[in-house]
Amino acid sequence: MDFVYGAGRNHLFVPGPVNIPEPVIRAMNRNNEDYRSPAVPALTKTLLEDVKKIFKTTTGTPFIIPTTGTGAWESALTNTLSPGDKIVTFLIGQFSLLWIDQQKRLNFNVDVIESDWGQGANLDALASKLQADWSHSIKAVCIVHNETATGVTNNLATVRKLLDFVSNRHISLNESGSADEYKHPALLLVDGVSSICALDFRMDEWGVDVALTGSQKALSMPTGMGFICASPKALEAAKTAKSLRVFFDWNDYLKFYKLGTYWPYTPSIQLLYGLRAALDLIFEEGLDNVISRHTRLGKATRLAVEAWGLKNCTQKEEWFSNTVTAVLVPSYINSADIVKRAWERYNLSLGLGLNKVAGKVFRIGHLGNLNELQLLGCLSGVEMVLKDVGYPVKLGSGVGAAATYLQNSTPMIPSRI
Amino acid sequence: MDFVYGAGRNHLFVPGPVNIPEPVIRAMNRNNEDYRSPAVPALTKTLLEDVKKIFKTTTGTPFIIPTTGTGAWESALTNTLSPGDKIVTFLIGQFSLLWIDQQKRLNFNVDVIESDWGQGANLDALASKLQADWSHSIKAVCIVHNETATGVTNNLATVRKLLDFVSNRHISLNESGSADEYKHPALLLVDGVSSICALDFRMDEWGVDVALTGSQKALSMPTGMGFICASPKALEAAKTAKSLRVFFDWNDYLKFYKLGTYWPYTPSIQLLYGLRAALDLIFEEGLDNVISRHTRLGKATRLAVEAWGLKNCTQKEEWFSNTVTAVLVPSYINSADIVKRAWERYNLSLGLGLNKVAGKVFRIGHLGNLNELQLLGCLSGVEMVLKDVGYPVKLGSGVGAAATYLQNSTPMIPSRI
Amino acid sequence: MDFVYGAGRNHLFVPGPVNIPEPVIRAMNRNNEDYRSPAVPALTKTLLEDVKKIFKTTTGTPFIIPTTGTGAWESALTNTLSPGDKIVTFLIGQFSLLWIDQQKRLNFNVDVIESDWGQGANLDALASKLQADWSHSIKAVCIVHNETATGVTNNLATVRKLLDFVSNRHISLNESGSADEYKHPALLLVDGVSSICALDFRMDEWGVDVALTGSQKALSMPTGMGFICASPKALEAAKTAKSLRVFFDWNDYLKFYKLGTYWPYTPSIQLLYGLRAALDLIFEEGLDNVISRHTRLGKATRLAVEAWGLKNCTQKEEWFSNTVTAVLVPSYINSADIVKRAWERYNLSLGLGLNKVAGKVFRIGHLGNLNELQLLGCLSGVEMVLKDVGYPVKLGSGVGAAATYLQNSTPMIPSRI
Amino acid sequence: MDFVYGAGRNHLFVPGPVNIPEPVIRAMNRNNEDYRSPAVPALTKTLLEDVKKIFKTTTGTPFIIPTTGTGAWESALTNTLSPGDKIVTFLIGQFSLLWIDQQKRLNFNVDVIESDWGQGANLDALASKLQADWSHSIKAVCIVHNETATGVTNNLATVRKLLDFVSNRHISLNESGSADEYKHPALLLVDGVSSICALDFRMDEWGVDVALTGSQKALSMPTGMGFICASPKALEAAKTAKSLRVFFDWNDYLKFYKLGTYWPYTPSIQLLYGLRAALDLIFEEGLDNVISRHTRLGKATRLAVEAWGLKNCTQKEEWFSNTVTAVLVPSYINSADIVKRAWERYNLSLGLGLNKVAGKVFRIGHLGNLNELQLLGCLSGVEMVLKDVGYPVKLGSGVGAAATYLQNSTPMIPSRI
Repeated sequence: MDFVYGAGRNHLFVPGPVNIPEPVIRAMNRNNEDYRSPAVPALTKTLLEDVKKIFKTTTGTPFIIPTTGTGAWESALTNTLSPGDKIVTFLIGQFSLLWIDQQKRLNFNVDVIESDWGQGANLDALASKLQADWSHSIKAVCIVHNETATGVTNNLATVRKLLDFVSNRHISLNESGSADEYKHPALLLVDGVSSICALDFRMDEWGVDVALTGSQKALSMPTGMGFICASPKALEAAKTAKSLRVFFDWNDYLKFYKLGTYWPYTPSIQLLYGLRAALDLIFEEGLDNVISRHTRLGKATRLAVEAWGLKNCTQKEEWFSNTVTAVLVPSYINSADIVKRAWERYNLSLGLGLNKVAGKVFRIGHLGNLNELQLLGCLSGVEMVLKDVGYPVKLGSGVGAAATYLQNSTPMIPSRI
Repeated sequence: MDFVYGAGRNHLFVPGPVNIPEPVIRAMNRNNEDYRSPAVPALTKTLLEDVKKIFKTTTGTPFIIPTTGTGAWESALTNTLSPGDKIVTFLIGQFSLLWIDQQKRLNFNVDVIESDWGQGANLDALASKLQADWSHSIKAVCIVHNETATGVTNNLATVRKLLDFVSNRHISLNESGSADEYKHPALLLVDGVSSICALDFRMDEWGVDVALTGSQKALSMPTGMGFICASPKALEAAKTAKSLRVFFDWNDYLKFYKLGTYWPYTPSIQLLYGLRAALDLIFEEGLDNVISRHTRLGKATRLAVEAWGLKNCTQKEEWFSNTVTAVLVPSYINSADIVKRAWERYNLSLGLGLNKVAGKVFRIGHLGNLNELQLLGCLSGVEMVLKDVGYPVKLGSGVGAAATYLQNSTPMIPSRI
Repeated sequence: MDFVYGAGRNHLFVPGPVNIPEPVIRAMNRNNEDYRSPAVPALTKTLLEDVKKIFKTTTGTPFIIPTTGTGAWESALTNTLSPGDKIVTFLIGQFSLLWIDQQKRLNFNVDVIESDWGQGANLDALASKLQADWSHSIKAVCIVHNETATGVTNNLATVRKLLDFVSNRHISLNESGSADEYKHPALLLVDGVSSICALDFRMDEWGVDVALTGSQKALSMPTGMGFICASPKALEAAKTAKSLRVFFDWNDYLKFYKLGTYWPYTPSIQLLYGLRAALDLIFEEGLDNVISRHTRLGKATRLAVEAWGLKNCTQKEEWFSNTVTAVLVPSYINSADIVKRAWERYNLSLGLGLNKVAGKVFRIGHLGNLNELQLLGCLSGVEMVLKDVGYPVKLGSGVGAAATYLQNSTPMIPSRI
Repeated sequence: MDFVYGAGRNHLFVPGPVNIPEPVIRAMNRNNEDYRSPAVPALTKTLLEDVKKIFKTTTGTPFIIPTTGTGAWESALTNTLSPGDKIVTFLIGQFSLLWIDQQKRLNFNVDVIESDWGQGANLDALASKLQADWSHSIKAVCIVHNETATGVTNNLATVRKLLDFVSNRHISLNESGSADEYKHPALLLVDGVSSICALDFRMDEWGVDVALTGSQKALSMPTGMGFICASPKALEAAKTAKSLRVFFDWNDYLKFYKLGTYWPYTPSIQLLYGLRAALDLIFEEGLDNVISRHTRLGKATRLAVEAWGLKNCTQKEEWFSNTVTAVLVPSYINSADIVKRAWERYNLSLGLGLNKVAGKVFRIGHLGNLNELQLLGCLSGVEMVLKDVGYPVKLGSGVGAAATYLQNSTPMIPSRI
């Protein structure tokens, strides 16, 4: 049943699905239940309240849909937009590409701002487009917070700033206008799949209208839950959005929220209890501590890469991702061989380079319920694999560089002292 | 974490989600894995092959989508039809109603044949409509095999017969025609949510074009997998169907099937292994034995209902369902009180009456991985609840009637003798 | 891996090992831990405190030994007695027989008071022996609280009374004596394996010196923990007892209790967490409610037996056991066939008749985490099996009799109303 | 319930209990079963057969007792020896000390050969004693194969050689003697707790009479099973051994082996299935490959220790243990601080120094289901802790040294290529 057995643990360092902590596995180890009994709504109520915390929103409305990130994307788009609506969107890697593909196939009018893979979203181009959009024809700006394919984190605070203060010329059109009228009314839709619960994300502060993530990423659960959070403005837009939708329709949820039974169709009982445990762990550690831990592990990984003499696919420090590092390999090495060998010899699962960067990068996912020694074990494995495939690395160099940083920066485990 | 604790097991007799056998719970008790490693495709290949067996198809193409039955419905419709296409569909209870609601919201031209709740689909009306449809404007016939709200099973073989031999007048239009040309070309889309793997279902023999079910029903797994199986004709239709779709698009799957990696987006590792175990159990018992077991448990339940002096919501024997029995209560009793009391006093979960039959029926689900004594325990509980709410039942009467039948008909467990 | 698969749940009604509730299974679903870290002692401390509650003692000292009931017996004997010490003990069934066998093999001087299997301990004989024992040569009275082989519960309060007020003649030997001196100093050692946590048991009130049970009985856990509780007098006796012992030596535990590390050798991490969950469930329900539930289920079972026209192996009502019922079958039936058939056809596990009553009785265990409908399912199965083997039972009669009582007596589940 | 939560996995490197592989955890995730049904003996039969393989015996008789290593010791001694029997035994560390303590408390006549902690058993002294023992008063030689406290592995082949060819003078006493009569008849009793299934161990080839281990060591299971294997000669001795025993008595097992029901008292159902899974994993990898893996991890650990400039507690290479490494720390460091800090800051569990070497050594357990990257993660953690407590280690040095060896010596995972 397990197919390709290897002794010891699998070292799971793909950027999703990620390691599930034991308490979450335990919580899901259960039979089904009647989801119409009083117990499931009582549980659900706590979940919806607490999910808002990981989005850092008090005004948003969360939806937990039995789907994946791809479905969450679709939910975000079809509930807020109508076919033909103009979207400005950024192409910077494989996952933004896939979302754009979806946007096009759902018949939106998609205006793509493309960058090199390894760069962040071109916000200057966004500024120009917003500037030129006197008529407010742009209905939504869609952006991937963290592009998992290249390890690039975009600056959402800047996106919000650009939307809020578009230009004097917009203002002149609304001379008597209030502050709000200076703002561009486009919705801000954010893919937070590999960021929320790991990177700094502030839905309310950054005026994000729809944010979304999936259970198998930083929440450290199995795949199967898409989390979508909608601002009041997004909910308002949902009332008039003409995109056809049923399974992904927020209105069906809202109807059941009012009834207090919450679920328009059968949820996974196991994932509900798993989510309860996952949230409990996050709050026990403290969400900000969770984010700091990711910051620490991201930095440690980059120090190892540097020590190996390799380049980060991410071209500038401002875009460095703390959840995934895409490592460029010398041209004489096929990065797919690294991933293959890691799995075949060391029980280490790394991420492949995708599409444009296939063969050129391999990826180390460092998100979710993970600690320092797990990462150092992974880094020592990467070193051995690099040597296996002919790259002249000094074994211990990367681990040592990472450890030097971690030995200084790792806090004591609060519950243990 | 479990909220409303009661001693001993919960007796789960809602018609879904149903009891999960221990080996399936065990198989899912695991960490995540990289779904791009060679292991997951190797596992998936066996699953796709074996899923076809539960649909009884050799020519169909299965899709396992991370969604629920509602999503599976949407997948069936949007992959085969274009907005405005004419659908003939049957309204006989809450779940057919919900599917019709979806059909309408997806902008199909829905021609509803309505029956009393408690009756099967009106196939005479279907015959007339097909008869009148010289122009073949009907693009699809949508039918729920087993209406879970009323415990009604429709006769799919007859539906196929009606589609195949529409009338002489159709023939006269095609004088030189081959046998195929006598047939009405409408697609036959079947909701098998509460039937497949429990009731006799024959995709190929009955010429079903799209059949679908969900993991939390007769497969006895958690919620989270929608199973859709498409005939070659349905796959052909998918090439031209204009309904917008991305998450539910079969083409994305077909592309990855060709690549041998199978998954366009992250599957639930846990459910994949759970499905392997669920299928193994079904094949170990034998699919036809599984169906016989459901026949036996259905009959036993109806004998108990009769012994209690109560009526089955299902009006004729030909429609009796072997997966769920909806029981009509006397007018002086609110059936919701029965469900409430069963849960509050006996740790027994029964199904509510829904919509038109709310307050009038309660439902006993007898599907999935269930045996005789589990059912008899449930029936004894129902008896006590009936007495609790003031219905003058003789305790032991229903259980005795059911047991009398079961004691004669239950086979020995093959592996134990 | 599961060998003899049958559909649905196994109905486990042997008098041990019993059904484990899901929260306990869940709690044990974990990796090993360092038992010398601060976490395990912190957990252990709560366990030792709470274990005392199920013994109803405040002055006793509990030991949790990685062993079974047989080992717990050995621990009770070897820690308190010296080879050659005189024990008065009762032979009333297979488990008292086995304990006596152990007592003999450990070289004690065993004075056996034998009764028919189906009768309780002959306390009149005990009274005579105590009366005659002017010299206090009897060092211990050993008694099985509930004989699992015959479903007989002995009256421990009476045993204590006999020990406390032996006779005037004893008193006359101690004319100037205090109340204590009227008492016989023999230790009272009680096997509570199938009683503690299910039947009324009061260590302190009844002056029990050593009481013991095993995890797989009313605590509803896997096998693997022997629980022994020692009174101050028993601990005192342990200081001079000359029986050789190491693994079972309380002193090794006491030494580690003082150190605060608790374990002289490696405990099962899984069972520790499982015990925590098991105790939590018991306290959530309330120990006295747990005992009432057993009283209810015991009575219901006996009513079913009566309705079937069968006899209870237990000869008088005063000895009826609320944890196990041994049912006598007519001489033309071999009770082993009942047990075999129950398992082979209905996935029902019943207890065999043992030794003297082999072939003559089968046993229904109704202890542990069990509720009304589980029992009724079992009883309906027993009815069918009885008919299978040729006993002319009216199906539904026993279940009906049991249900009539239960429908009146079952309380609402407190957490659900 | 988990008390001292830390993010990510616990890195468990105590020399027991060790990491349990997921398939074993999964196999144990189950309800109880009737151990008298045909299923449990069918399973048990396979277990007893396969357990012999890990002892490398075809003539031995295995016993699986619900106890720990301490109980297994007691079982080995009491079944083969009588009070007063002379035992020659070796004191080389805490676990041999504890066994000796047991030997004394069980009233054997114990002749202890003591060595410095960090040295192996003094086999020269054994030779002398055997030489001098013309009368064959030595009834047993007891030896710990691998002393877990100091990381010392003794040479069992040499012990056997000494027993087999004692001296000419013995021969002269048996002039007409066969080859067998040259041999010393003392039983060879071996504690294989931290060796069997990890180190090279050959029961038959080395003429071991009783060998034993525990489930929580190299078998990588929870605590709770003591494995004892008895040679035909040991079984013969059991017939006349006069040590009192019941719970640990092999005869009770042998009686039930004959009956084909195997268990004299209730086994842990969960551990039986867990053992099946554990053995399956070992045989899938290949027992000799498992041993090679331990050899590799042991060597890698020692290379790291050397790179750190620290000394191994084990004084000579011939005694180096491949399951545990005891590391001496400089006198200005308390090794307990290392263990404490590892747990409090890095979620790393190391072994304390015990008794004579308390404060002076910390221990790295590298046994059980473990792979290269897990070990390297641990070693990187040890490095950081060493720096934390003030030892001037170059971070990366030990990991690098270990990795350099492992990158050369680690085989591909056979199932993955």
